[in-house]
Amino acid sequence: MALAAALFADLGEATRQGLGIVRDSYGEGEQMAHDLVRSAAAALNLDISVDALGNLMMTLAGSDRAAPGILIGSHLDSTPQGGNFDGAAGVVAGLSALSGLRRAGVTPRVDLTVMAIRGEESSWFDISYIGSRGAFGLLDPSCLKVPRSDTGVSFESALLARGFDPQAIRERRRLLDPERIRAYLELHIEQGPQLVEKGLPAAVVTAIRGCRRFRNARCYGQYGHSGTLPREYRRDAVAATVALLHHLESVWVDYETRNADLVFTAGELSTDPLLHAPSKVAGETRFVLDFRSTSEDIMRDVVAEARAAAARIGDDYRVRFELGDTSDSPAAVMDPRLRAALKGVFDQSFDLPSGAGHDAAVFAGVGIPSAMIFVRNDHGSHNPEESMDLADFAIATRGLMRLLDDFPF
Amino acid sequence: MALAAALFADLGEATRQGLGIVRDSYGEGEQMAHDLVRSAAAALNLDISVDALGNLMMTLAGSDRAAPGILIGSHLDSTPQGGNFDGAAGVVAGLSALSGLRRAGVTPRVDLTVMAIRGEESSWFDISYIGSRGAFGLLDPSCLKVPRSDTGVSFESALLARGFDPQAIRERRRLLDPERIRAYLELHIEQGPQLVEKGLPAAVVTAIRGCRRFRNARCYGQYGHSGTLPREYRRDAVAATVALLHHLESVWVDYETRNADLVFTAGELSTDPLLHAPSKVAGETRFVLDFRSTSEDIMRDVVAEARAAAARIGDDYRVRFELGDTSDSPAAVMDPRLRAALKGVFDQSFDLPSGAGHDAAVFAGVGIPSAMIFVRNDHGSHNPEESMDLADFAIATRGLMRLLDDFPF
Repeated sequence: MALAAALFADLGEATRQGLGIVRDSYGEGEQMAHDLVRSAAAALNLDISVDALGNLMMTLAGSDRAAPGILIGSHLDSTPQGGNFDGAAGVVAGLSALSGLRRAGVTPRVDLTVMAIRGEESSWFDISYIGSRGAFGLLDPSCLKVPRSDTGVSFESALLARGFDPQAIRERRRLLDPERIRAYLELHIEQGPQLVEKGLPAAVVTAIRGCRRFRNARCYGQYGHSGTLPREYRRDAVAATVALLHHLESVWVDYETRNADLVFTAGELSTDPLLHAPSKVAGETRFVLDFRSTSEDIMRDVVAEARAAAARIGDDYRVRFELGDTSDSPAAVMDPRLRAALKGVFDQSFDLPSGAGHDAAVFAGVGIPSAMIFVRNDHGSHNPEESMDLADFAIATRGLMRLLDDFPF
Repeated sequence: MALAAALFADLGEATRQGLGIVRDSYGEGEQMAHDLVRSAAAALNLDISVDALGNLMMTLAGSDRAAPGILIGSHLDSTPQGGNFDGAAGVVAGLSALSGLRRAGVTPRVDLTVMAIRGEESSWFDISYIGSRGAFGLLDPSCLKVPRSDTGVSFESALLARGFDPQAIRERRRLLDPERIRAYLELHIEQGPQLVEKGLPAAVVTAIRGCRRFRNARCYGQYGHSGTLPREYRRDAVAATVALLHHLESVWVDYETRNADLVFTAGELSTDPLLHAPSKVAGETRFVLDFRSTSEDIMRDVVAEARAAAARIGDDYRVRFELGDTSDSPAAVMDPRLRAALKGVFDQSFDLPSGAGHDAAVFAGVGIPSAMIFVRNDHGSHNPEESMDLADFAIATRGLMRLLDDFPF
């Protein structure tokens, strides 16, 4: 794991600003990470290419170069003040595995390509999965106008500034052909606490949760004096919103009881700071409802239940809910053969759904058999305290290498 | 009611800015109202004096000037962009009643004094009941430093600019002697909807609700990824706050079922805009809990229940509630003899608690028998749409006059 230790150290040193890591999508930080990874790939004598959107492909040639190859992918960008491992661990694992195979004198049957994917974090540009969706021609050209959240620079300008080609997005050009990809594999740190809690180094991902999000939900009531308005005359936006959120929590608990995969979060909630007051019944709330599940059916049902409950509770409280449209990302089931093979390469296997989205969902979405390995990680992700032991990373990476060496199909 | 109609018109014309009324406490607007009222009192040949804090006393002399007199009080300031009637109606009613008695050739038994009270609205200076508490030497001298909410000018500077005497507050000087006041009467527009709903012109106030307010309540949890954190690992500040508010609403409903006077409002609630995100479990909420009742016992019990529930729900949700101290204003029961007498002077009597605070609470608090009359008013108060019919005002004012003419003690 000398290669991995050195790469993690170099990446951390190059892209740390203050406490946290800053690898801004299509910015300086992401580019520094790509440069470091490219140097490491060159030192391993891998074939190197960069596509029109800046995705970096590093290939160990197989004996049958005409056969569809295997991609080992992950992203190199980070959230603002993020951690050193979210994303980068998957690229480093891929290079380590190829290096290990080469050291062991193995010539793979098919091409094995590590893909360092651009722009997976939507915190810089509010566009999901830029690099992977772009590689399949799936980005809507309107995304080129999206401004970077901090500087306001358009996505198109950011692409041009790095020498990449917005025309590929305008033409919805396919940079990767799904027919030429046998499988997609991605290693990632776990972003939840379960491997730490269970005392296990790694897990096999069952599915990636999709998301239905009411990003701009509102409740409209009427402002009034808190002392003088009896309950039956109130149109209290806070009371109604509390009733809705309380109901949705009970819906979640019901699903849990039936072992049906669902998580529900209201992470933003507020009254209007310009109009609220300690002595006023609130006339408006704004909030976000975020539903995630590995099942499209469950997400459809729970969105319908949220709308029905909002109508019912709105009537009860004499307020009007406007939940608005949902923004959707699909759930993706991981390939059963790959999952079974991965469970075979680990001493202790542990199944886990991925609550967060990953590029693997895009590859699964275009029909490519896809799998993910999670590595134990403390303190969650997207923060400077991400904490992955190199020993756990080594176990997970050896599993990946064994899978590549003895691929099930 | 010619006097009243003319005074309301003059007050509205002099102090309207755009849509709303602006009679800023100790500012231009309040002073203009005092000047107009003083002129009207002078035209009625009332004895006029102004105390050290600017309260304006307008007296119709009684036959026994040595006997304790009766005060008819109300304030002349308004909230920012307030309405024409909140406060002023009580002063205009007092002058109209004295004018009516004089026209009827009545010499009252004791002095009848209309008191135009300064600074009742705490929206300009965050100090409750400036004029009435100040008149009894009850203001804490530290209030002199309080800045005006819009201009930042200190309360002391505002007093000095109008030629009043901050020293009276520093010395906690009594400007009024409770022993010299037989009773305090106040007419006010209803700030809730109940007289409109019941189709009645006026009501007799039973009591003024006190308030216990947790002004700066907090819930501290832990931020986390909304997709990856299972429920049992969450420390979700929004979910916990929702559970607390939902419980407190059920407590309110319980009190209501037992016909026990309570209102509960959470009028401000928000996650931290710098740290929240659609995909994050919220690590913090800030909110206000406002409990009001005509019963001190109920307020004490419900505050204790809020603290107990916060502790219990905090444990359940693995978060920490910090409710902080309450800011308190006492409940005040209106004098039973005055209430009975007032019910006698109206054709249809209707009892109503006052949900909002009034200077009458201060007078009752120092042991002066106090009573209030509410006049029907649509659209609530503290806004330009306050809507009081002069016919209703006339009915209420005639009731006040009859009470003064046939005082029960």
